[in-house]
Amino acid sequence: MVSERLTRLLSLLSRLPGVGEKTAQRFALHMLAVDASYSQELGAEIAALSERVAPCSRCGNVADVQGERSLAVCSVCSDGKRDATILCVVARVQDLLAIERAGTMRGRYFVLGRLLSPLEGIGPDELPIPKLAGRIRADGVREVIVATPPSVDGEATALLLKQELASLGVALTRIASGVPHGGDLEYADPITMGRALAGRQQL
Amino acid sequence: MVSERLTRLLSLLSRLPGVGEKTAQRFALHMLAVDASYSQELGAEIAALSERVAPCSRCGNVADVQGERSLAVCSVCSDGKRDATILCVVARVQDLLAIERAGTMRGRYFVLGRLLSPLEGIGPDELPIPKLAGRIRADGVREVIVATPPSVDGEATALLLKQELASLGVALTRIASGVPHGGDLEYADPITMGRALAGRQQL
Repeated sequence: MVSERLTRLLSLLSRLPGVGEKTAQRFALHMLAVDASYSQELGAEIAALSERVAPCSRCGNVADVQGERSLAVCSVCSDGKRDATILCVVARVQDLLAIERAGTMRGRYFVLGRLLSPLEGIGPDELPIPKLAGRIRADGVREVIVATPPSVDGEATALLLKQELASLGVALTRIASGVPHGGDLEYADPITMGRALAGRQQL
Repeated sequence: MVSERLTRLLSLLSRLPGVGEKTAQRFALHMLAVDASYSQELGAEIAALSERVAPCSRCGNVADVQGERSLAVCSVCSDGKRDATILCVVARVQDLLAIERAGTMRGRYFVLGRLLSPLEGIGPDELPIPKLAGRIRADGVREVIVATPPSVDGEATALLLKQELASLGVALTRIASGVPHGGDLEYADPITMGRALAGRQQL
């Protein structure tokens, strides 16, 4: 690269997920081509991100920091119109955001941050189950919706939650797995099709 | 989106070329997941970019600013080992960087910044031809390599340069167009194949 500053920026941009050398170059040259206010504003937002956004102290969702960083509470947890007795357990913030986009979840969330994964050496003790149990008790939760992904690790985590939360007397449900909306049956993989059949409901 | 700060950042990230809502979210959540020093450093580099990098005052390439912004000179123009009598004319900085990657160009560059494009209303007067002619005279250029892309606008620009620079008594060459390295003849489009045949050379 012909510019030292640009080389430094490109190496940082290349660390973003899915961004290689060419994409990084495209981003940087775009920033140089448009009005300087754009890169100034974007840079300022990124630089301040870690100060201004923190995990929600209650659920692990992203939260705007107001005052003490460790006391940040997200917009879902602070929304009084949400039903605190329904708690949806997800693996990652991304999954929470995908559920929010559906617009039909009226309860709150709990982000595990990781899944049980014997292959990666992540055992039950690495999951924040005591914190989850505390939240269930404190909020008088009646239903826990387990929305971990329909993968091997996601299912293993769901089973673990079933065991660990059994004594709390809370209803445990699992999101449905089946043929996606708009999906073509012809291209559904055998496991998805098996689940769609096993999970069939009265018409 | 559940966080105001994140929403602001996502709308800025979405303005990068090829970045949609989901990719922007992936970038932002990655920045939050890794060590805070990463986003701080990345943000600082982006925010300072427009101050630190400017178009080279001689050729239009990206250049590190040292002192006066309008006097920035790029690493190619300031490299005394480059042959100043060979000048490669390109449309964009991206093209210059692609040529530099080949590692065989020992001359210097001139970035037009745009191509002749009747369809987009870009006529000959919008191209920096007087500046190019001045550069050719000042540097005693002997060969001008026209490396505009092999597109309609690129070829039109090459022809315009041929007319405009004819009186300067400089040798004008055009980069070869043909079947790319590793390309399969079976999948070459008819125009590329026609050019490969027309541009054939003694074996």
